[in-house]
Amino acid sequence: MTYVLYYWSGIPGRGEFVRLALEDAGIDYTDIAQTRGGDEKMLAALKANSKTPPFAPPYLKAGALTIGQTANILLFLGERHGLAPKSHAGCLWVNQLQLTIADLVAEVHEAHHPVAASLYYEDQKPEAARRTQNLREARLPKYLGYFDDVLAGSGTGWLAGRRLSYADLSLFHVIEGLRYAFALTMRRLEKRYRELGPLHDRVARRPRIAAYIASGRRLPFNEDGLFRHYPELDS
Amino acid sequence: MTYVLYYWSGIPGRGEFVRLALEDAGIDYTDIAQTRGGDEKMLAALKANSKTPPFAPPYLKAGALTIGQTANILLFLGERHGLAPKSHAGCLWVNQLQLTIADLVAEVHEAHHPVAASLYYEDQKPEAARRTQNLREARLPKYLGYFDDVLAGSGTGWLAGRRLSYADLSLFHVIEGLRYAFALTMRRLEKRYRELGPLHDRVARRPRIAAYIASGRRLPFNEDGLFRHYPELDS
Repeated sequence: MTYVLYYWSGIPGRGEFVRLALEDAGIDYTDIAQTRGGDEKMLAALKANSKTPPFAPPYLKAGALTIGQTANILLFLGERHGLAPKSHAGCLWVNQLQLTIADLVAEVHEAHHPVAASLYYEDQKPEAARRTQNLREARLPKYLGYFDDVLAGSGTGWLAGRRLSYADLSLFHVIEGLRYAFALTMRRLEKRYRELGPLHDRVARRPRIAAYIASGRRLPFNEDGLFRHYPELDS
Repeated sequence: MTYVLYYWSGIPGRGEFVRLALEDAGIDYTDIAQTRGGDEKMLAALKANSKTPPFAPPYLKAGALTIGQTANILLFLGERHGLAPKSHAGCLWVNQLQLTIADLVAEVHEAHHPVAASLYYEDQKPEAARRTQNLREARLPKYLGYFDDVLAGSGTGWLAGRRLSYADLSLFHVIEGLRYAFALTMRRLEKRYRELGPLHDRVARRPRIAAYIASGRRLPFNEDGLFRHYPELDS
């Protein structure tokens, strides 16, 4: 089956959660964002007649299927490519974790765009400052404390079961993104939630993830994406 | 299997999406919010030792399983109780639709709480006014236009396939919530997106949904929930 990933070029964004799964599973895929005119192709395919039209990128074409919503794409890939437990209960648990990661990621995005995603950050700076204070002091500790507890509870080094799942790959990316966006905050929080750093390092050492990072194909974080470094929002 | 639904008392909230599925499928369940001391029981069970701890309510206990995240609970119920297509591709499509509904619901909540969910609306009124204008003028038309297109494209009266799925029940609830919160806006948008009203009415006429509404157990919308009516935010 041929896989084609459609996402915006130039940012890791939500597409990166899908890329990490494809890379770790060693799946051959075309990344439209890395091709000429990628954004135009992505937008054209978004509007093309599909029986299961996506609301927004990322979406994955897998043979005749068009699959939208990040967590839904990962549910599909996880089951097919050994990135989720074999049991139905295990798949539900990984999906639950992934949806909680999606909630965290949405809140991180809201922090620099509390008024409207369609406005520039510069047009909502006072609101962003208030919101991000709440993110740093209340929401990030709550989410990171939760994942720290889950890791400590599983005792295997992975969030769910004895093997890595796509939720571990996503949490790895979240940790990288938060370190980029909120370096000072994360230095403090990682001292309190001590399972996060080791999970990050275990994922980074996976041969295919290490090769992906070394390849130069992994897009750097920047101020157009989900995880943005605005020094005035970190402390 | 015994089902127990855990959610906050006093608001429909995200618990209502699960209730509608349980009710339409005719599943026997205990609704902790309707029992004495429901909130305390829900919070206690949230902190109790589970192998799959939920981050937040709603969560469902189904025999030995504890299942969190609204869309994940619905994925589980849909497959088991005939509220999703039988094919794997069909299940993914309904999950995709449900996750898009979840995104819409989150944006509706953000509109009256753009600074922090933990602050009162009264402490973020100017920010809410700006955000809600964007919701009314850009985001709601985008989401409702999308679901209108999906309904028109399916041609069966339901979002996915020939039979009702849990996504139809959720969209019904969203339409009710939006009519409550943004009556003036919805009067305008429903003229433009003409599939929504008939979908709403088809769901409301389902015998078990009609019985549920008539029972008095369905909690009314109010200003503690997701869909809130603040006249200054509607126009």
